[in-house]
Amino acid sequence: MAKEKKLVEAITAMDEDFAQWYTDVVKKAELIEYSSVKGCMILRPNGYAIWENIQKVLDSQFKETGVENVAMPMFIPESLLEREKDHVEGFAPEVAWVTHGGNKKLEERLCVRPTSETLFCDFYSNIIQSYRDLPKLYNQWVSVVRWEKSTRPFLRTSEFYWQEGHTAHATADEAEERTVQMLNMYADFCEQYLAIPVVKGQKTEKEKFAGANATYTIEALMHDGKALQSGTSHNFGDGFAKAFDIQYTDKNNKLQYVHQTSWGMSTRIIGAIIMVHGDDSGLVLPPKIAPVQTMIVPIMQKKEGVLEKAEEIRARLSKNYKVKVDDSDKSPGWKFSEQEVQGIPTRIEIGPKDIEKNQAVIVRRDTREKIIVSLDEIETKLSEVLGQMQSDMLERAKKHLEANTHEAADWDEFKEIIDKQQGFVKAMWCGETECEEAIKDETGATTRCMPFEQEHLGDVCVHCGKPAKKMVLFGKAY
Amino acid sequence: MAKEKKLVEAITAMDEDFAQWYTDVVKKAELIEYSSVKGCMILRPNGYAIWENIQKVLDSQFKETGVENVAMPMFIPESLLEREKDHVEGFAPEVAWVTHGGNKKLEERLCVRPTSETLFCDFYSNIIQSYRDLPKLYNQWVSVVRWEKSTRPFLRTSEFYWQEGHTAHATADEAEERTVQMLNMYADFCEQYLAIPVVKGQKTEKEKFAGANATYTIEALMHDGKALQSGTSHNFGDGFAKAFDIQYTDKNNKLQYVHQTSWGMSTRIIGAIIMVHGDDSGLVLPPKIAPVQTMIVPIMQKKEGVLEKAEEIRARLSKNYKVKVDDSDKSPGWKFSEQEVQGIPTRIEIGPKDIEKNQAVIVRRDTREKIIVSLDEIETKLSEVLGQMQSDMLERAKKHLEANTHEAADWDEFKEIIDKQQGFVKAMWCGETECEEAIKDETGATTRCMPFEQEHLGDVCVHCGKPAKKMVLFGKAY
Repeated sequence: MAKEKKLVEAITAMDEDFAQWYTDVVKKAELIEYSSVKGCMILRPNGYAIWENIQKVLDSQFKETGVENVAMPMFIPESLLEREKDHVEGFAPEVAWVTHGGNKKLEERLCVRPTSETLFCDFYSNIIQSYRDLPKLYNQWVSVVRWEKSTRPFLRTSEFYWQEGHTAHATADEAEERTVQMLNMYADFCEQYLAIPVVKGQKTEKEKFAGANATYTIEALMHDGKALQSGTSHNFGDGFAKAFDIQYTDKNNKLQYVHQTSWGMSTRIIGAIIMVHGDDSGLVLPPKIAPVQTMIVPIMQKKEGVLEKAEEIRARLSKNYKVKVDDSDKSPGWKFSEQEVQGIPTRIEIGPKDIEKNQAVIVRRDTREKIIVSLDEIETKLSEVLGQMQSDMLERAKKHLEANTHEAADWDEFKEIIDKQQGFVKAMWCGETECEEAIKDETGATTRCMPFEQEHLGDVCVHCGKPAKKMVLFGKAY
Repeated sequence: MAKEKKLVEAITAMDEDFAQWYTDVVKKAELIEYSSVKGCMILRPNGYAIWENIQKVLDSQFKETGVENVAMPMFIPESLLEREKDHVEGFAPEVAWVTHGGNKKLEERLCVRPTSETLFCDFYSNIIQSYRDLPKLYNQWVSVVRWEKSTRPFLRTSEFYWQEGHTAHATADEAEERTVQMLNMYADFCEQYLAIPVVKGQKTEKEKFAGANATYTIEALMHDGKALQSGTSHNFGDGFAKAFDIQYTDKNNKLQYVHQTSWGMSTRIIGAIIMVHGDDSGLVLPPKIAPVQTMIVPIMQKKEGVLEKAEEIRARLSKNYKVKVDDSDKSPGWKFSEQEVQGIPTRIEIGPKDIEKNQAVIVRRDTREKIIVSLDEIETKLSEVLGQMQSDMLERAKKHLEANTHEAADWDEFKEIIDKQQGFVKAMWCGETECEEAIKDETGATTRCMPFEQEHLGDVCVHCGKPAKKMVLFGKAY
């Protein structure tokens, strides 16, 4: 068994060193490979297939609400990036600059897009003339570049993959509606497909997106008690429209500025899947998003009829599920380890004795429960197991979120929780950026959001004692 | 009607100025918009949706042959690009260089990928150890950058979208098989989905890909008689493997170099769709690849029941087709023009009189044929019309290809054809690069390929009179 155990043994235990566990899992599950380009990762087939599944679901949900896909250039001329004051301040320090093209020095430097508001604004100013041209509901699936000093796979890399939606509307109300609609779509997607519960809320002035009037966010809680910002939606009001002169003629023939939004979800969310559901044996993928939902492992596959039966089961299950047969020349134990490390939700073991009894064994990745099923009803049984696993995973994640969300009535309690218990801390806040910064300096915790579901935990700020304005969700974050 | 005709009138006639016609069509059909980034285009929803449909079909065909998708970094360190001598010579002069990241000068320049062989090789050298790891059949859908001096939408832009497949195999035979397999897949895709017939063949030494042993190509003929290289597949042999030290241990425990291929199809192919099928009213999209297959145009839509009936038909047809209703406040004539400019394969006109008679009018975009159909059988009739249109389009394109493919027995005939008739010219060639260059200098025609289907047109080279080695397809090209 020594050889079979190698894969699992190579993964550091979560409780021993969570960061190392994470790094081990992304490598052993073959999600990523480090590249020769500092800070950039290679998404291997196992990793990219998860992203493809995320794309498929979100893209079709976007399109149902009228969103259309486009493709914008990957470069932004320096003068265009500088057009909106807050935005350039937020992004200029972390962009990559192209200075030469085709062996010649460029007249104007181009940055590789860190995000594409400026490009979309430039585009919108050309194509929007009349109220008839509104709304514009555009999205693109691309990679963006932000030069990061220290990087971690999925969580923080110099290049990462995302979708960025950019919309232009006739009225402020419509823009606000779209901003909230997309945040809700992200939240529902996380719960229903990724089995990750999130807290919805608004970012503080300090934490909001560069150039936005308001940034809404969904915050998820990882296994180690740290927060991960998992998707954001921004309402720009008419700030960008004024900077880029995006006006339309309304029905009364009057010129009006448009109101804009943008919203994004990135490959970061794969980091959340790993850190919410993974265990000491590796990845655990929610069935609804898993590229392979069940791996059939033939036992004693050289015996006559075993591989044939495995293939027959695969063909039957393939009508409704993503199924593979591992018919490689590795041992069954080694195959089990690989299926577990890669987080494939279920495996089906089938050997000569099972075939004799017209049965197979379904093994759940999360609970390791073994379910003996008759081959006659394997379709319905697999369906039940995958459905149950999906909902159990969400339930467990919800319990973890609840158990690790605390309330702090005063500053001592706040510090105690952040130090000892970790997780989210709900507390009242005065609304001052200075106070927010002091809290961060003293504890390392940042304001994750001002939850939409406000509670009245007290009258004064947990830190400075001034009258409280909002209940805030605090936490240490990735 | 003045207003209604504007859209169409704005398109220059093909015969008057083909280049201007092309530019007018890409703009008026809202496929692209020029951006503030020199040489880069914006793919608008109409343009990007065509690319999405191409992706959907090709991606699933790739996957059926075992190909998996990955995502590689968009940057290549200068030292990595330089590793394979022929390759760097081919690409270094046309790349964009990133010299600064996050306000700091980089220790090593990074180029924005012009193609990703070097990245894949670096990756493969890390992950391939044993024969068990082979083959690797990876692909990515990305944009690449080649700094172009003069650009034209789809045909030649500094940034363009494509897929690039990169495979590694245990044997030379297997690599060759994959190279041909992918070329055939491209050719079949062009015929079956895009209604574009192509000529398959091998590139000459001069025209082959930088670093390849052999480059295979599909060449299509545009309406104006110019050729468009529409997809290529390269066999690298073990050249890159030696430069990047990609070795595996075979079953006899001996170290062997892998054999590699790469193959790509790009957004250029949208240029081919436009220039093969378009007419003086704009774009004509093959039904199988059209983002919208039929546009329902209600006539007198304010009359009670008209919009409801249009919506009812849309709902019925939507089960099998991509259908929209144009219920905007524009006139029917204006809507017809838009549908025609955008190349939507059919429109369905339905007004109060039609409703009375329980009928509608299907109008084909290519022939303008009007077909009155009973609403009871509109599904089957639309199916017939779209099927007929798809095959008619291919037939017309085939006839155009045949009518414009000539044979040149001697040099005078060759020059005569290239000057007067345009199109493809088949002629015998000695196999010398010098002679190939002389032909180009004298006539502007290049070797498009050495067709797989060779014919014996004579014994000597059409240009120099030396013994002929191959029949070559010549043409002026985009």
